[in-house]
Amino acid sequence: MPCRCSLCRGDAGKPLPAFLAAAAARPDPARAAVVVGGYSARVDASFLDAVPSVRFVFSTGAGVDHIDLHECARRGVAVAVANSGTVYSTDVADHAVGLLIDVLRRVSAAERFVRRGLWPVQGDYLLGSKLGGKRVGIIGLGSIGSLIAKRLEAFGCIIHYNSRKPRDSVSYRHFSNVRDLAAESDVLVVACALNKEAHHIISKDVLDALGKDGIVINIGRGPNIDEAEMIRALKEGRIAGAGLDIFENEPKVPAELWSMDNVVMTHHIAVFTSESRSDLRDTTIANLEAFFSGKPPLTPVLPW
Amino acid sequence: MPCRCSLCRGDAGKPLPAFLAAAAARPDPARAAVVVGGYSARVDASFLDAVPSVRFVFSTGAGVDHIDLHECARRGVAVAVANSGTVYSTDVADHAVGLLIDVLRRVSAAERFVRRGLWPVQGDYLLGSKLGGKRVGIIGLGSIGSLIAKRLEAFGCIIHYNSRKPRDSVSYRHFSNVRDLAAESDVLVVACALNKEAHHIISKDVLDALGKDGIVINIGRGPNIDEAEMIRALKEGRIAGAGLDIFENEPKVPAELWSMDNVVMTHHIAVFTSESRSDLRDTTIANLEAFFSGKPPLTPVLPW
Repeated sequence: MPCRCSLCRGDAGKPLPAFLAAAAARPDPARAAVVVGGYSARVDASFLDAVPSVRFVFSTGAGVDHIDLHECARRGVAVAVANSGTVYSTDVADHAVGLLIDVLRRVSAAERFVRRGLWPVQGDYLLGSKLGGKRVGIIGLGSIGSLIAKRLEAFGCIIHYNSRKPRDSVSYRHFSNVRDLAAESDVLVVACALNKEAHHIISKDVLDALGKDGIVINIGRGPNIDEAEMIRALKEGRIAGAGLDIFENEPKVPAELWSMDNVVMTHHIAVFTSESRSDLRDTTIANLEAFFSGKPPLTPVLPW
Repeated sequence: MPCRCSLCRGDAGKPLPAFLAAAAARPDPARAAVVVGGYSARVDASFLDAVPSVRFVFSTGAGVDHIDLHECARRGVAVAVANSGTVYSTDVADHAVGLLIDVLRRVSAAERFVRRGLWPVQGDYLLGSKLGGKRVGIIGLGSIGSLIAKRLEAFGCIIHYNSRKPRDSVSYRHFSNVRDLAAESDVLVVACALNKEAHHIISKDVLDALGKDGIVINIGRGPNIDEAEMIRALKEGRIAGAGLDIFENEPKVPAELWSMDNVVMTHHIAVFTSESRSDLRDTTIANLEAFFSGKPPLTPVLPW
């Protein structure tokens, strides 16, 4: 049987409203929607109005901030996401640790130095900062945050964390307040989901509590950080550096960051490994097969 | 008492022979020599002939390939090095892991992409490769190699190693032959000292055994790798990438490497953290104090 998805039927490249209208107008209108990534489409009332036949939404992204879960629940639309499994968590945790080592040990800055052929000419060296003994404050000790903690423990880092409630299963020090966590940390790692409370959770106040030797790592969501305040703090030397996989207005990265040697930036690639792509493909197909067989989704956010 | 070292006495900047001659010609000729790094001076017969009053050599470098230990032993010159302690090991291990994550997850390549402002224009993404499950073959399971293994275990890597003899204290799989290790590994990490047997231990043969998906990390010594063969293998896609802190003819880095996106290069900075510098200063002073008090060196290579 040929594939009957909207892309294979020739709707690729259409603007979203036309794409949804085409899916709704078919004799067998779309019953499931696969949403790729966090920024391509918002699944909200108008999306669901456009294709009222959709009863199942699967998101391949690692967050649900682009899905109006209340609206889906109200309409009885089931929602599943790839990140309910472990598809992304280890890759994101690995990337966070990579960014931290890079910032502390100045790998990308050294890279630029070597590739410009400056080593034989200037003989400069870059003095980094040791991982061991650093107090790392993790905001959000979910699956990703926990894996970051486990990795950094092997480097001799001291783990603190912030979450709504302390976890019984860990011995790390808990802080109910992010400002207090920042004041007791050398590094802050943002590993929480984006919701109303977590918007600009890294504020000017938190950055000042972290202080001039402090480093911020963000693999959560761009708007978790007040980006303008972070850039100001970096420029004024009120924090020491940052490792960022995500930005407040992607794909726009403020040009002021481009020339900073103490900042390491990647373009939202923390989940991009060939292994996770193939896991994701399997998870997506398995969820769709379950839905079309009348079975519960395998990695649900909202109950079937 | 003012410092009486040759630098403080005004001999800084002299070429080495003149510097040594001045140290030997003083009424109280130099009794101890501090050698900075691995490439500034070779402590060999002619060095020791030039300042025959020297009875103690302290090297701040992480290796002893620049010190003729047999010649020192024959003359009864004690030798101590900073790396006998743990001054460098953790920093070098951290740097090795950082290079590996960077190569696998393409951090520096992504960095260049973002800093050129290409993200909004091209929308490209770089597909990396997962750390978990990678078989990492470590050549040399000394203090640095062991710390690398410990760190990579936390990422879910499978550790193999090569050393002259198997270690009873570890459960990792031992290979007595580097070619066999390469054939069973996805990543090779060079963490051994440089000696006659380890010169070009990463040969064409070993690179071919590692294969087209394989990655080489070098934090040992430049000449541990046959650099020309490695560059050829990278150009021809016979290996997948490399992370290099050291090079065969430092500070010269072959220009062919400068434009390769699958290579991450730093300029021999694996030991450069502000913490290790201050540890090093303390270790150096403590060894000199011990020597001048007639006590044994604290971190000896050759017995007092």
